[in-house]
This record gives sequence, C-alpha cells and structure tokens, in this order.
Amino acid sequence: MKVIVVGATGTIGEAVVRELGSRHDVIEVGHSRGRYQVDITRMESVRALFTAVGKADAIVSAAGKLHFGPLAEMTSEQFQIGLHDKLLGQVHLALVAQHHLNDGGSITLTSGVLSDDPIRYGASASSVNAAIEGFVRGAAIELPRGLRINGVSPTILQESMGAYGAYFVGFEAVPAQRVALAYARSVDGAQTGQVYKVW
Amino acid sequence: MKVIVVGATGTIGEAVVRELGSRHDVIEVGHSRGRYQVDITRMESVRALFTAVGKADAIVSAAGKLHFGPLAEMTSEQFQIGLHDKLLGQVHLALVAQHHLNDGGSITLTSGVLSDDPIRYGASASSVNAAIEGFVRGAAIELPRGLRINGVSPTILQESMGAYGAYFVGFEAVPAQRVALAYARSVDGAQTGQVYKVW
Repeated sequence: MKVIVVGATGTIGEAVVRELGSRHDVIEVGHSRGRYQVDITRMESVRALFTAVGKADAIVSAAGKLHFGPLAEMTSEQFQIGLHDKLLGQVHLALVAQHHLNDGGSITLTSGVLSDDPIRYGASASSVNAAIEGFVRGAAIELPRGLRINGVSPTILQESMGAYGAYFVGFEAVPAQRVALAYARSVDGAQTGQVYKVW
Repeated sequence: MKVIVVGATGTIGEAVVRELGSRHDVIEVGHSRGRYQVDITRMESVRALFTAVGKADAIVSAAGKLHFGPLAEMTSEQFQIGLHDKLLGQVHLALVAQHHLNDGGSITLTSGVLSDDPIRYGASASSVNAAIEGFVRGAAIELPRGLRINGVSPTILQESMGAYGAYFVGFEAVPAQRVALAYARSVDGAQTGQVYKVW
C-alpha cells in the first residue's frame, strides 16, 4: 500500500514510519521537513499535498498543535489554537482524503488520552481530542467506496516524559513504538469508526 | 438561586425556564430576545452579559448553532460553524462564568446524542458535541471555589421531529420537559464533570 504519513518527523510519526515502512510504501510529510510539506490548517495546502503525492491507499495523521494552560486564565484565542490546528487540521486531511484515496483506503487521525482522563491545564486538549473522536465516529458512517476512518488515542509517550512528564504524574507512559502498532491496526485492518486507545 | 439561562427562547431553554422557574430566580437570555441578549461567539459580549446581570449561582446554556450536511461536500467553513458557535460559544460562557459565579455555583452546557450515535450529515455535530463533553471533563477538575460544570446530552426532541425527524429515523424522541430535568439535576445537584444523557 502507498501510505501518506503526516507529522512524519514527530515522535509518533517516526515510529509509525518505521512500523509501516517494513511492508508499505510510506510517504513522509512534515510541516517544514519530510519528503513533502503541508500546512494542515489550510485546506488548499492539504489539496496541494494530494495533488503532489497522487493516489494513495491510506493517510495517517500524527500532527496538530494544542494549547496547555490554566483554565482560570484561558483566553478565547488560546482555546482556538487546538481547534484550528489539531482538530480542524486533521478534519481537513480527512475531508480532502475522502476524494483522493483509492477504494477501500483508510484515514487514521490522532486524539489522545486527555479526552477521557483530564489533567490540570488540559481543558482545551480534552475538548480537542474528544472532538477528533466524535468526528471519526460521525465520518465513518458516511464515507463511500469502502473508505475507513479510525482514531488513535495515545497516552503520554515515554519519549515525551522529559518535556511533559510533570503534567502526567501517575500516568503509565508508553513507548512510541507501541503507539505505532495502533496505527498499523487501523491501516492494515478492516475496522472503521474506532478509536484505538493505547493506555 | 439566581440562574442565568442562555438560549432561553429555544425549545429546550423554554422547558428549562419552566422547570427551574418554580424554585429559582431565572434570568432569561437570548440571542435577540429574552430579558438580556448575548452573542456567545464573542467573549466581550459574554463579559458584558455578566456585568449586566451581576453575581449569579448558576448558568445554563442551551444555545449554539451546528452545521448539518453531507461529509462528501463539507467545506472547512461549514465545519467551523459549529466550532465557533455551539462549541466556542459555550466555552466562552464557561470561561467567563468561572470568574463571576458565586462559590459553589454551576455551569451546565449542552452537547447532544450525536457525539455517541452518529447520523448521516452529522459529522460536524458529532465532533462538536463530543468536544463539549471533553471540555466539561477537562474544566471540571480545574474549577476553584466549589464551582461545578456538567453537560446535558439530549437526543432528538419530540418538539423538533417536524423539522429534523427525517434525519433521526428510529431514534426515540423525548419531550423537552424531560430534557429539562437533566439541567435541574446539574443545577440543584452536587456532581461535577458529568454528562447527563437523555436518550
């Protein structure tokens, strides 16, 4: 299969590329690095990506920015960061992908543990991650031509404990390599409308 | 208690006003009608509402627009309608209310059945409703001074079957009066971080 991985240069993306690369033709896409670049917040940029890459069998997104900060000080603009990047950006990928993937192809988006298990400073992240999962459930039943869509909800990564560990005290961190298996399950499997929790 | 009801002139809002009005001082707020008006999409308008109303013990929101339409034709702009209105608008209410409610006060937002149970043309609604529920879970653990936040997830209303029934074939419609009980449970109860499902 030809699999587009958006966010390929991130911690999860690199693990996904390693996992899928052994048996698929993986196209690495980053924001400013990778074989192709895309700004997922702009639908035109996503369209240009598919025009450049051509037909594919799957797209995996491990991309998207979130705002973390105290609820008491949260501004509308801060709340909108995750809405416009991790949520709308990934929705853009799905909306465009539905017209460019081969029959039976798959879309895999990334949410996260905070949708179910909140932490301090994570109200925006909880909302955005839940929204991605809701979109997956909603989109799955409308996709034509055997197209599928799933989400992967990772908990904190072992590789990210240095940067974010203080916010996730008591959470069991998982290696990115284990999270990558969930993306493989989505790409190589036959399920749709699922959210694979890795926690 | 003094309870602000935003969306008071809608089908759910009117039922909530009737349910809460028997024992509380209810302040009815609408977009263009009601005792006070607010544009929930603008944080300044929400701030102005609280300045005008003064201290309160609870705020209930039964407000917010959503886009319904086929996934195959959905544009970024259409997907953003619900993000900026039903989601961000209700988040604005919560962000401002946390600084204006009396100790022990409550915030009650409205999501909807589509977060869990998708329908055709509902991908945006599924995403927005799930996002509201994620925000409720995330915000609940950060609110100070005994403040609480809950969501109410109604299914299709009996009163709305004429307008939307064709999209909800097979769903058991509920009367707005029954949905209003869930808001009462949130306002008069002691729970927080919950989503009360009325379906």
